Amino acid sequence: MTDTDINADWIAVDWGTSNMRAWAMSASGTVLAEATSDQGMGKLTRDGFEPALLDVIADWIQGPTTVIACGMVGSRQGWVEAPYATVPSGTLPEGLVQAPTTHPALTVHVIPGIKQTNPPDVMRGEETQISGFLARNPGWDGVICLPGTHTKWVHISADEVVSFQTFMTGELFDTIAKHTVLRHSIAADGWDDAAFAEGLDLGIARPERLAARLFALRAQGLLNDMVGNAARAQLSGLLIGAELAAAKPYWLGQQIAVIGNSTLSKLYVDALATQAAPATQVNAATITLAGLTAACRRLKG
Amino acid sequence: MTDTDINADWIAVDWGTSNMRAWAMSASGTVLAEATSDQGMGKLTRDGFEPALLDVIADWIQGPTTVIACGMVGSRQGWVEAPYATVPSGTLPEGLVQAPTTHPALTVHVIPGIKQTNPPDVMRGEETQISGFLARNPGWDGVICLPGTHTKWVHISADEVVSFQTFMTGELFDTIAKHTVLRHSIAADGWDDAAFAEGLDLGIARPERLAARLFALRAQGLLNDMVGNAARAQLSGLLIGAELAAAKPYWLGQQIAVIGNSTLSKLYVDALATQAAPATQVNAATITLAGLTAACRRLKG
Repeated sequence: MTDTDINADWIAVDWGTSNMRAWAMSASGTVLAEATSDQGMGKLTRDGFEPALLDVIADWIQGPTTVIACGMVGSRQGWVEAPYATVPSGTLPEGLVQAPTTHPALTVHVIPGIKQTNPPDVMRGEETQISGFLARNPGWDGVICLPGTHTKWVHISADEVVSFQTFMTGELFDTIAKHTVLRHSIAADGWDDAAFAEGLDLGIARPERLAARLFALRAQGLLNDMVGNAARAQLSGLLIGAELAAAKPYWLGQQIAVIGNSTLSKLYVDALATQAAPATQVNAATITLAGLTAACRRLKG
Repeated sequence: MTDTDINADWIAVDWGTSNMRAWAMSASGTVLAEATSDQGMGKLTRDGFEPALLDVIADWIQGPTTVIACGMVGSRQGWVEAPYATVPSGTLPEGLVQAPTTHPALTVHVIPGIKQTNPPDVMRGEETQISGFLARNPGWDGVICLPGTHTKWVHISADEVVSFQTFMTGELFDTIAKHTVLRHSIAADGWDDAAFAEGLDLGIARPERLAARLFALRAQGLLNDMVGNAARAQLSGLLIGAELAAAKPYWLGQQIAVIGNSTLSKLYVDALATQAAPATQVNAATITLAGLTAACRRLKG
């Protein structure tokens, strides 16, 4: 099957800062085709979004086509600003915002993010994953953890986002590994389960010592020839451990789901297990598409 | 007076990762001339050190001249490796190491750093500042804080370094401000005392929340138009607060001296004052030269 055989009923788009992913969908909800692009929001100016989208989906358009998009595409620096809903909020906020288009057959709707005033916090894209999860798990109450560059902990009750808190854990990991003196000590990839477990214990028990533990990783490299795999895994453990210590009011005694890429999600599930907090791991891409599908159904009535 | 009038009895050199600073000294300990260079250890290969030094001091050499150097010049990537002494250690460790030279009148001695096995830690350069401080304050016992890229807390007793702990606070500040999403929220300079105080309180009270507080700075920029000066000061407060929380076993109930650049040292002194821990502020450059002078006196008997 070539792309010219595709006739999408609608198109689902997950458009983040770094990448974009699109699915051609049938009216019955089957995936007809799927494609990705590295033209993330961060690389585009406002008038660059429509051409970047058409680069990916043009062959799927045989007639008037609705696109439903979530993520940073709706930020102030995105295609069109989709103003945040405010907690407590349904996970599919009202008020999809239409993006300006020139292609005659294209209508693009952007899903708004959700904000919280106190403490101040924002999400864009995660609300769609959460609504996808709830579409698959009706009536589910508990806490959803969405690990990533900016990990979110979200309290869900009665199909609403009650409150949430974001941790810059993933971005701290990348930045510390690449842009500090630890770049000499930390391998670009590789892993060591024992070093992760040690970092996790230290991070949970003494989260305030993070800046000291970071330098200790460097000193261990100099004095004890600590290998780069172990340093990498221990850094991850320290950061996730400190996050779990701070997020305890979210996860303690709650039903927990972890939505994210499989490697990172498994780290969180395993880390929570050490705290006697069982969590269910959920695939992010599947659940994002489920959320975009729910938004499309509501739009089309 | 031009440099050609200088006839140094010896030359003091503080050679760090980023910069180098040299003083032409008389036999009686007077500073005859002073110069700096951006040829730090990080920019040089092993055979680049002598030319980089001569660029700065050649005019001061009228006959056989001793150079005493401290800092990263003695690291494995430096001019010559000056192996670490181990705590407990005198602040002027035995075993100056001579660097290889080709200039017939030049003899270069490098001061070793100090290491600690458990928890693993290292210092290079700070030992010289500490010995300078003790030369000026004989018999002083207490804790010395040396704020900077890698802030050190050092327990001094009976003229020895008993133990120490390094925090990557300064490097975290720079890296987070420049290389994360907070670069959009944080001003390149500027300050706000109230925002620093708020960050300090949060950092001391709930250090485990650092990764969440960082994202909250971003959210406050998006939602509340928090200004860049305030975000910059609050980030500094959060990081220094978390450090003080972790370093409490060092400073609690101790006599405290803070040695560093004046702006940063004042932040630490003021922060300690909020914890009812009075500290004396000491100028770093003066005290480094005092330490190099003490090393020269011991070398020359």
